[in-house]
Amino acid sequence: MTTLIYNCTAVLMDEARTVLRNAYVVVEGALIRSVGTTRPAGTFDREIDGGGNVLMPGFVNAHTHVPMTLLRGYGGGCDLHTWLNQYIFPAETKWDDRAISAAADLGLAEMIASGVTTIADMYMHTDMVAQRVLSSGISANLSCGGLFFGGDFDPKTVHDCVVQEELFRTWHGRGDGQILIDASIHGEYTSQAPLWEWTADFAKRNGLGLHVHLSETRSEHEDCVGRHGMTPAAVFEKYGLFDVRAIAAHCVWTTPEDWAILAHHGVSAIHNPMSNLKLGSGIAPVPAMKKVGVNVALGTDGVSSNNCTDLFADMKIAAILHNGANCDPMALTAYDALHMATVNGARALGRNTGEIKAGCVADLILVDFSAPNNIPCHDVVENLVYASHGADVRMNMARGRVIYQNGEFFTIDLDRVRREVADYAMPLLFG
Amino acid sequence: MTTLIYNCTAVLMDEARTVLRNAYVVVEGALIRSVGTTRPAGTFDREIDGGGNVLMPGFVNAHTHVPMTLLRGYGGGCDLHTWLNQYIFPAETKWDDRAISAAADLGLAEMIASGVTTIADMYMHTDMVAQRVLSSGISANLSCGGLFFGGDFDPKTVHDCVVQEELFRTWHGRGDGQILIDASIHGEYTSQAPLWEWTADFAKRNGLGLHVHLSETRSEHEDCVGRHGMTPAAVFEKYGLFDVRAIAAHCVWTTPEDWAILAHHGVSAIHNPMSNLKLGSGIAPVPAMKKVGVNVALGTDGVSSNNCTDLFADMKIAAILHNGANCDPMALTAYDALHMATVNGARALGRNTGEIKAGCVADLILVDFSAPNNIPCHDVVENLVYASHGADVRMNMARGRVIYQNGEFFTIDLDRVRREVADYAMPLLFG
Repeated sequence: MTTLIYNCTAVLMDEARTVLRNAYVVVEGALIRSVGTTRPAGTFDREIDGGGNVLMPGFVNAHTHVPMTLLRGYGGGCDLHTWLNQYIFPAETKWDDRAISAAADLGLAEMIASGVTTIADMYMHTDMVAQRVLSSGISANLSCGGLFFGGDFDPKTVHDCVVQEELFRTWHGRGDGQILIDASIHGEYTSQAPLWEWTADFAKRNGLGLHVHLSETRSEHEDCVGRHGMTPAAVFEKYGLFDVRAIAAHCVWTTPEDWAILAHHGVSAIHNPMSNLKLGSGIAPVPAMKKVGVNVALGTDGVSSNNCTDLFADMKIAAILHNGANCDPMALTAYDALHMATVNGARALGRNTGEIKAGCVADLILVDFSAPNNIPCHDVVENLVYASHGADVRMNMARGRVIYQNGEFFTIDLDRVRREVADYAMPLLFG
Repeated sequence: MTTLIYNCTAVLMDEARTVLRNAYVVVEGALIRSVGTTRPAGTFDREIDGGGNVLMPGFVNAHTHVPMTLLRGYGGGCDLHTWLNQYIFPAETKWDDRAISAAADLGLAEMIASGVTTIADMYMHTDMVAQRVLSSGISANLSCGGLFFGGDFDPKTVHDCVVQEELFRTWHGRGDGQILIDASIHGEYTSQAPLWEWTADFAKRNGLGLHVHLSETRSEHEDCVGRHGMTPAAVFEKYGLFDVRAIAAHCVWTTPEDWAILAHHGVSAIHNPMSNLKLGSGIAPVPAMKKVGVNVALGTDGVSSNNCTDLFADMKIAAILHNGANCDPMALTAYDALHMATVNGARALGRNTGEIKAGCVADLILVDFSAPNNIPCHDVVENLVYASHGADVRMNMARGRVIYQNGEFFTIDLDRVRREVADYAMPLLFG
């Protein structure tokens, strides 16, 4: 299957920051075959008229919990403790696979419509999440968020060890690399040394990446220092968890010493500005981490603390928040934010995407530049970051397959999902 | 003309915070006639099926510069000084009425599509802005942003005195109150005592409100203290400018003493979070101002420093920013933000809107709650503030007239505007 995309301005996200007017992009199978400004010779199985719009790499949502869609706005207006303990945790005990399936499809639909082509997810019922992601067409690094609260530790019986081994055997590499399993620790405060040691070994012997929460709240960070005499980043480093490719979500309360650890090990910090603001967690030191060489990517977190996924909105906030917080209009530029949402995300997840380049995975979105909010266009990147909305996404191509176009989903039956959510999942969780 | 709106959930924004399921709202002329939960007797000239969606008051964008749409993203990536002096100010010298007309229509279309029904605008060529607003159907408090840099002061010859007198005579109250003229001082740093005295008198003798920029940047605030030994708010109070209904945009660097002045005189602070973040101006002390009784409303500022107007996005940022900046998830609630964007905006502008109530102006929008990002709905207000997008607006009724529905504009010819922008305005300003 070959596809020619033409009549568009392509934002390549290469080192030279090329914005290619009148671009021709050829896709063959799941990969980009060529990028140029003249029509390539030959015929193609399919041609897509870009309509004069902007073609860019699909977004990498590098930290999320997709099934939490059904908890959107649930328990809002409470303090954090009440919200988690009286609303979120009790609801989460009630999930079954059927409810997870509907919730995941709903979350995936929302992300696909706003231009996401790759995610890093951490949640329970990961086997079902993997099934729905595979069906949706986007790529995912999946993890189960390992927990261990103490007691005897036998990896043959500890739930999250058994689950991770099984996820790895069943899913890692499925769909020609569409699904990858990441080893995972939910967080320092929800686990202990035996699980850290086992997980580091599990990741190393299977060549897996790692997904953790890191220093999201002040109390999480300070309590760890109280318990261990070191920060969560230092604890994880000590136990070898950062010896593999790793993504650390939030990093709000990380210290300069922590940034040195992250930079040294090539650990990516995932910035979730909407969630951190909404929950009152704080403002992550993104410009400072970037300055010392930490790879910072972008995530939405679960919609229960966002409460939606319009990746353009998350990218815009990432772009402007640090200017305001630091009283420096140059703290982050539009290009920095776009880089975080694409190239840095791909690097964080160890994936060959986030750029428009021959040989890269064909994760591509078309953004409507005839919408009033994108007129005029003095600078394509400025408009993408500060002026475009998720609703401007006209097409989402994931791994070479068009999965969304002009409001229509080709891999998700949204009406069925709406019924399944209303008739089954909602009564189960909240009825 | 009578209209019945039915099959919707109405968020009334009354003191009791009523969310009315299965609401019936009757509109007669430009006003709401009745609100209830049973079908009113009689027949109606028109019936609008709300489609199970949410009806809420249209947004009040309480500080903007509509024609600046054409400067969207222009000179981005520069520091503030370079941006203003090398890009914005030189372009602004080139406007003519025809370019202003196209730019205003474009900006109004963008706002109308995301649910705005009332604005407070400050810009040049105000006569032309007034013509376009009148034609668009929304309501506006318009002002010209009075400047006076020194020299002889004769109100018969000083440009911004002459303009303000003429705007008042020509436009104040036009369209049965659709257009109101506000007296205006651009800012303390761009004007001097003779203009302050004249403007205070002009507003008082004509019963007008006032629109000013106040303590947007640290240097603006501190330079004023250096010049006058008092803050901009204290200067304006001293010269009687706050003796009338007044709106003060930004207030980022205002002090507790300033908040007392604003609260005492009933001056409204207009919060522009996107602009303040993007330009690195800082984070306005919104929870603190609210606590001491200042009426805080919401604005987008001009899109040149935003760079778009999706009022839902601005409302969400207003709702979450202060939680993050203060590490307090309860610093502002969803309802607080919705109140700022509707009720407080109406109060700031002295307008009988911002609520769904018999006798109020029929400024109403329908928001799609079947969109993936609004599923599920545990709480209507939480979804409106944290999960809804401008693109979810299905209908915009301003002053009883449907001006936008399902992507179609009824008062603005968007294709003509696109042509006028591309063929005339852009070459004039930037060619």
